[in-house]
Amino acid sequence: MFEFRVDASAGAARAGALSTPHGEVPTPAFMPVGTAGTVKTLVMEEVAALGARMVLANTYHLYLRPGHELVRDLGGLHAFMRWDGPLLTDSGGFQVFSLAAIRDVHDDGVDFRSHIDGSVHTFTPESVVEIQRALGADVIMAFDECPPGGCDRATAQAAGERTLAWLARCRARFEELGRDGDVPEQSLFPVLQGNVFDDLRVSHARRTRELGDWSGFGIGGLSVGEAKENMWRTLELLDAELPLDRPRYLMGVGYPDDLLEAIARGCDLFDCVAPTRNARHGTAWTSTEGQVNLKAARFRRDAGPIDPDCDCYACGRYDRAYLRHLVVAGEWLAMRLVSIHNLRFLTRLTEEARRRIGDGSFESWRREWLGRYRNEGSTQ
Amino acid sequence: MFEFRVDASAGAARAGALSTPHGEVPTPAFMPVGTAGTVKTLVMEEVAALGARMVLANTYHLYLRPGHELVRDLGGLHAFMRWDGPLLTDSGGFQVFSLAAIRDVHDDGVDFRSHIDGSVHTFTPESVVEIQRALGADVIMAFDECPPGGCDRATAQAAGERTLAWLARCRARFEELGRDGDVPEQSLFPVLQGNVFDDLRVSHARRTRELGDWSGFGIGGLSVGEAKENMWRTLELLDAELPLDRPRYLMGVGYPDDLLEAIARGCDLFDCVAPTRNARHGTAWTSTEGQVNLKAARFRRDAGPIDPDCDCYACGRYDRAYLRHLVVAGEWLAMRLVSIHNLRFLTRLTEEARRRIGDGSFESWRREWLGRYRNEGSTQ
Repeated sequence: MFEFRVDASAGAARAGALSTPHGEVPTPAFMPVGTAGTVKTLVMEEVAALGARMVLANTYHLYLRPGHELVRDLGGLHAFMRWDGPLLTDSGGFQVFSLAAIRDVHDDGVDFRSHIDGSVHTFTPESVVEIQRALGADVIMAFDECPPGGCDRATAQAAGERTLAWLARCRARFEELGRDGDVPEQSLFPVLQGNVFDDLRVSHARRTRELGDWSGFGIGGLSVGEAKENMWRTLELLDAELPLDRPRYLMGVGYPDDLLEAIARGCDLFDCVAPTRNARHGTAWTSTEGQVNLKAARFRRDAGPIDPDCDCYACGRYDRAYLRHLVVAGEWLAMRLVSIHNLRFLTRLTEEARRRIGDGSFESWRREWLGRYRNEGSTQ
Repeated sequence: MFEFRVDASAGAARAGALSTPHGEVPTPAFMPVGTAGTVKTLVMEEVAALGARMVLANTYHLYLRPGHELVRDLGGLHAFMRWDGPLLTDSGGFQVFSLAAIRDVHDDGVDFRSHIDGSVHTFTPESVVEIQRALGADVIMAFDECPPGGCDRATAQAAGERTLAWLARCRARFEELGRDGDVPEQSLFPVLQGNVFDDLRVSHARRTRELGDWSGFGIGGLSVGEAKENMWRTLELLDAELPLDRPRYLMGVGYPDDLLEAIARGCDLFDCVAPTRNARHGTAWTSTEGQVNLKAARFRRDAGPIDPDCDCYACGRYDRAYLRHLVVAGEWLAMRLVSIHNLRFLTRLTEEARRRIGDGSFESWRREWLGRYRNEGSTQ
C-alpha cells in the first residue's frame, strides 16, 4: 500500500500512480479542497464525475468544527463526508499560521486562537498526528512550521530545524498509534521547508530522508508569495534530491499554468482553493482566453459555454450569458457551476499531461499550451 | 391548451391536470420559486428529479436583472434558465409592494425604485404584460395591487377596484400582442383581491369572471399576515364563486400544513420561497417531527436522515450529523441539500394528496397527517 509506480517520464515530469487503501490515484493529480469536509457547494458525486481521484480536507478546520473525535465516532472522515476515494488531510500548520488570530510558536508546538470563536488551542506534533489518525484520511501530513514568504535566511533556517524536530516526533507518535492497531491504515508524509534558500532546501531534503523511508513528500513553503522563478528553481533542486519512486506533493498550487510548470519539474500531487475561491468571484479558466471574469459586460449576450474545449457539466449545459447573470445577481448556483468548471479544467489538464508524458509529446504540448493560455489570457 | 381536467375530487379538494405548451401539470402542484431564473443553488435537473412539474420565476427581478429583452433575445426564459417544463411568471406586483424602496401608486401604474441600485422604474398593466410576453412563461399573471395584510376595508376596496381596472388593461394588451403573432403561446391569469372582507372577495371574484373566460385564477392578498382562519374562510367563499373546471393558484403558500389545508379548500397550484429560504437557515420539514432546525445540538451525532420517510437525494445520501455540521459551518452545500429535501417534501405531499383524492382517503389522511405533523412538531 502507498506504493508509487512511475509509468512514464518526460524530462523531470512523471506519469505515475499512487496506491491507497481507497484506490489508486493516477498522477499528476489535482486534489480539490474540501476544507470543512465539503468541496464548497458540491456533492462528492460531482467531484468524482469531474474526474478528481483524491480529495484534501483541512485538519485545522475539522478539529475546530465539528471536532475530530466526533468525526471518528461517526465512522471517520470518508464516511462523514461521503467520499469513498483517496483522501489527504493537511497538518493544520499552514492554517494556524495564516488563519488563527493569536499564536505563540515554541518548540513544543503552537498556541493559537480559533478564527471562529477565539477559543485557545495548542497543536503539537503529537496532537496533530492524533487528530489526523482520528479523521482517518489515507495520507496525513507531518506538522511543520511554514514561515511567511519573503522571510530572511535565519527565520527560514530556524523554521526548518523546528520542522525536522517535529517530524521526528510526528513519526514517533504515528508509529506508537499504529501499534495500537485501532487506527486506519495511513501514510505519513513529511513536509519539506527551507523557503527559497537553495542550501537550506537541499539540507532539509537530505535530513528529512535520513529520518525515514517516507512513502511520499510534501513540498511546503512555496506558493507563499515568492517570485515564480524561485519556485521553479527550488523544484528543480528538489527533483535531484528526492527519490524518483516516491510521489511529491506540491502544497497550495495551483493555477493552471503553475500546475503545468510544476509537473514539468517533477511534481505529482497538487491542491489549491483557487478553483473554488475564484468561482465565488465569477473567475473561470479557459484554454483559449486564459482567465476570464464572467462579470464582464462582453459576456452579456454570449451564447457560448465558458470554454468550448471543456467537457464539464457547466460547459455542456449553460452559456456565458446565463452564468454572467448568475454571477452579477450573486446567485450561489454560479459558484457551483464555475467550481465544477474550474476543477474540471485542472483535472483535465493533469489528465492530458499524463497522456502526453506517456506518448512523448509532453514538452512540446506544454509550451504550446502555456503560450496559448498566457498570451490570450493577457488580452483580458 | 391550458385546459384543466378534474380527475377526482374529495369535498372541495380536486385531483386534476393543467395542460400547457411545455407539458401537463398534475395538480395539486407546488411550484418551486426560481426568483432570478434559478431555484437557488439547484440545477433544473435536480428540480425535475425531485418531482416538480411547474416552476415560478419573478417578473420584477428578471425585469431589473438581466432585463426581459435580453432574456427574450436569448430565446426566452425557458431556454435561458434551461427549464423545458411548464413555467409561470408572477406580475411583479407583490415584489414592487414588498421589495422596492420608494413608490407611488396611481391609476396608471406604480413608480418604484429598484432594490438593487435605486434606479426609478414604472410598472403599468401594459408594461407588465409586455415584460411577461418577452420572458415567455406558459402562464403569466395580471398586474394587481396587493394591499398589506391587516389593511382596512376602504384600502382593500380601493385596491380591488384598481386591480379590476388594471385587469381589463392587461387583457387588452395581452390580446393586442397576441394578434402580432410574434409572442409565445401563453395564458393570462387574473389575480383575485379583497383581503379578508367577504363581500369584497365575492364581488371581486364575480366581477373578474365578468371580464373574461379565464383559464385559471390567481388568489392574491392572502398569506400576507392575516389570521389563518380568515384565509381558510376566504378560500371556502371563493370555492363557491369560482368555476370548478379552472385551476386556482393560491399565491405565496406555503408551509406543508397550510398547503394541505388549502388543497382541502379547492386550491390547485401553490408557490412559496419557504422551502429554499428555510433551507438557508437549516430549517427542514419532517413528517414525524414537524419543522426542525438542523442546528440543534441534539443532531450532533444523529446518524439518521432528515426524514426517514423521505425519498429525496439528501435523505438518501446524508445524515443529520453531517448536515448539522454544514449548517453550523455556514457551508452552502447545506442550503442545497436542505432545499432539495424541503422542495421534495412539499412535492411528495401534493403527490400523496392527489393519490388520496383519487382513492377516497384524502380527508382521513389529511387529518391524520396534520395531527402528526403539528403535534410532534410542537415538541421542537
